[in-house]
Amino acid sequence: MKAIWLENKIARLRDDLPVPTIGAGEALIKVNLAGVCSTDLEMVKGYYPFTGVMGHEFTGMVEEAPDAPEWLGKRVAGEINIVCGKCEACCNGRSTHCANRQTLGIHNYDGVFAEYVRLPIANLHAVPDALADEQAVFTELVAAALEVTEQVHLQPTDRVVVVGAGRLGLLIAQALKLTGCDLTVVVRRPEPARLLDAWGIRSAYATELQDKEADVVVEVTGSAQGFATSRRLVRPRGRVVLKSTFAGDVSVDLSSLVVDEVTLTGSRCGPFAPALRLMEAGAIQTQPLITATYPLEEGLQALEHAARPGTLKVLIKP
Amino acid sequence: MKAIWLENKIARLRDDLPVPTIGAGEALIKVNLAGVCSTDLEMVKGYYPFTGVMGHEFTGMVEEAPDAPEWLGKRVAGEINIVCGKCEACCNGRSTHCANRQTLGIHNYDGVFAEYVRLPIANLHAVPDALADEQAVFTELVAAALEVTEQVHLQPTDRVVVVGAGRLGLLIAQALKLTGCDLTVVVRRPEPARLLDAWGIRSAYATELQDKEADVVVEVTGSAQGFATSRRLVRPRGRVVLKSTFAGDVSVDLSSLVVDEVTLTGSRCGPFAPALRLMEAGAIQTQPLITATYPLEEGLQALEHAARPGTLKVLIKP
Repeated sequence: MKAIWLENKIARLRDDLPVPTIGAGEALIKVNLAGVCSTDLEMVKGYYPFTGVMGHEFTGMVEEAPDAPEWLGKRVAGEINIVCGKCEACCNGRSTHCANRQTLGIHNYDGVFAEYVRLPIANLHAVPDALADEQAVFTELVAAALEVTEQVHLQPTDRVVVVGAGRLGLLIAQALKLTGCDLTVVVRRPEPARLLDAWGIRSAYATELQDKEADVVVEVTGSAQGFATSRRLVRPRGRVVLKSTFAGDVSVDLSSLVVDEVTLTGSRCGPFAPALRLMEAGAIQTQPLITATYPLEEGLQALEHAARPGTLKVLIKP
Repeated sequence: MKAIWLENKIARLRDDLPVPTIGAGEALIKVNLAGVCSTDLEMVKGYYPFTGVMGHEFTGMVEEAPDAPEWLGKRVAGEINIVCGKCEACCNGRSTHCANRQTLGIHNYDGVFAEYVRLPIANLHAVPDALADEQAVFTELVAAALEVTEQVHLQPTDRVVVVGAGRLGLLIAQALKLTGCDLTVVVRRPEPARLLDAWGIRSAYATELQDKEADVVVEVTGSAQGFATSRRLVRPRGRVVLKSTFAGDVSVDLSSLVVDEVTLTGSRCGPFAPALRLMEAGAIQTQPLITATYPLEEGLQALEHAARPGTLKVLIKP
């Protein structure tokens, strides 16, 4: 089959890969549509030494599931952590932190920029008929957005600032708006500001915001500058949620966290079921985030396009 | 009156200072006993540009309180933040973060290494008769220890590690033990280990502890090495409470906080009333923490002694 293969930080199109062989409890899924994520771009830069088929955001159709035939022909989204179910994290409801996890297209497990992918049945979520593939492909990213409210109790009276208006920031903004909180999104360019305006979400340049004016700040830039802005905006005893990974270490004034009793919380993968519920309810818009769609054969161009500044979501269609 | 005066990073004994003049709502307090804190030592090193009478840990006797005569002759401990009562933080129950605060012996307000100190009546807490001055002088430090459980819900089933067994670490360990949690204190020398052993608290060298074995870690060293140990010990989705200030910035792998969804929480001043209740109940031992007591006239020697490695609490008696 065809796939985008990463090896020694070089991504290339291959057409010589076998269709995956499924094991016990697994399903074979024909990929309908996949999405390019910042993590994919970071991996090409060498952020993580992965060899295999790239990609982890997808929706597809179950073609084989011998141990669970009720899934046959179902359209699905799939959780990206393949977990052991036995370690302390798994046994305590924190399976996304499984000590023995593999991660779809990221760690020891072939991904979804391919015609077919295999996944454990336990990872699958049925996609409601009302959702087009172009929406369902966002499930993993919307779930990551909802991890913020999964971890932090956002009160409707909270003043919340989202720093960063890329693909993830725009989804987080929509998810947080649903709490009724007093929300502002920090933008650097006019395009996302227009999109936010259409959604009834206030946007601002960082310089327009006062020091310590936010109860909660969500950092979605993964840059030292975005971190500094977040730290400046949060009030004493407030919280900064770190939603993006950073390239390299960041120099942090830990003493000021002590003096201001600020809390930093890292946030990664989130819950799929509520992501599908909110998308089905029409509460989170994904269509305006799609910048371009490429056939799998042009997957390398898709990666290149996704890396250009200002690009939102680039999709790959096998 | 006599006092220890800090100016241009130089502490000196003065005997030419006037007894403070009190204003509306204030009390004049004769200092019975004061304690040297790490913050005092940091200020001498230039951590904060303060000019005035040093010291913020104390107990004393109210000698004048024209607006609240019921306090006359009462033995008191005093909260160290002098607040406006009007700013957003004050109006929202976060008065220790008052935007206009002065801080006793630290910021724009003369401290307690002196014969007399003035404080707003609102800052005073009556010391129970059962507590000796040598216990009451620890109120501020025990309150700071209790800020950990004020901020973080420690479950009795939590595995908690306190990194650092100095004066504050030893008080935090005693306070956390009361939750019933599975507690270990990281030590670097045998003396505090013996003290902890006498209190029925397990101690260990950092190298004896496994990666990610703690649900909650309390960092009380204020060193980059202590932070690294804390980060190593906390499990994914666990929490590190930062209880000590650090000299300078620390290089932090923020991405690993994101991937492991770890939370960092800064922690500073705590609640006085429960500190007094627990000391009165005999639940927190302070006597073994007293290394030496100096008369105010030898206050400079007291500061010098407090700075020596392995010293626990040094007291100053006016």
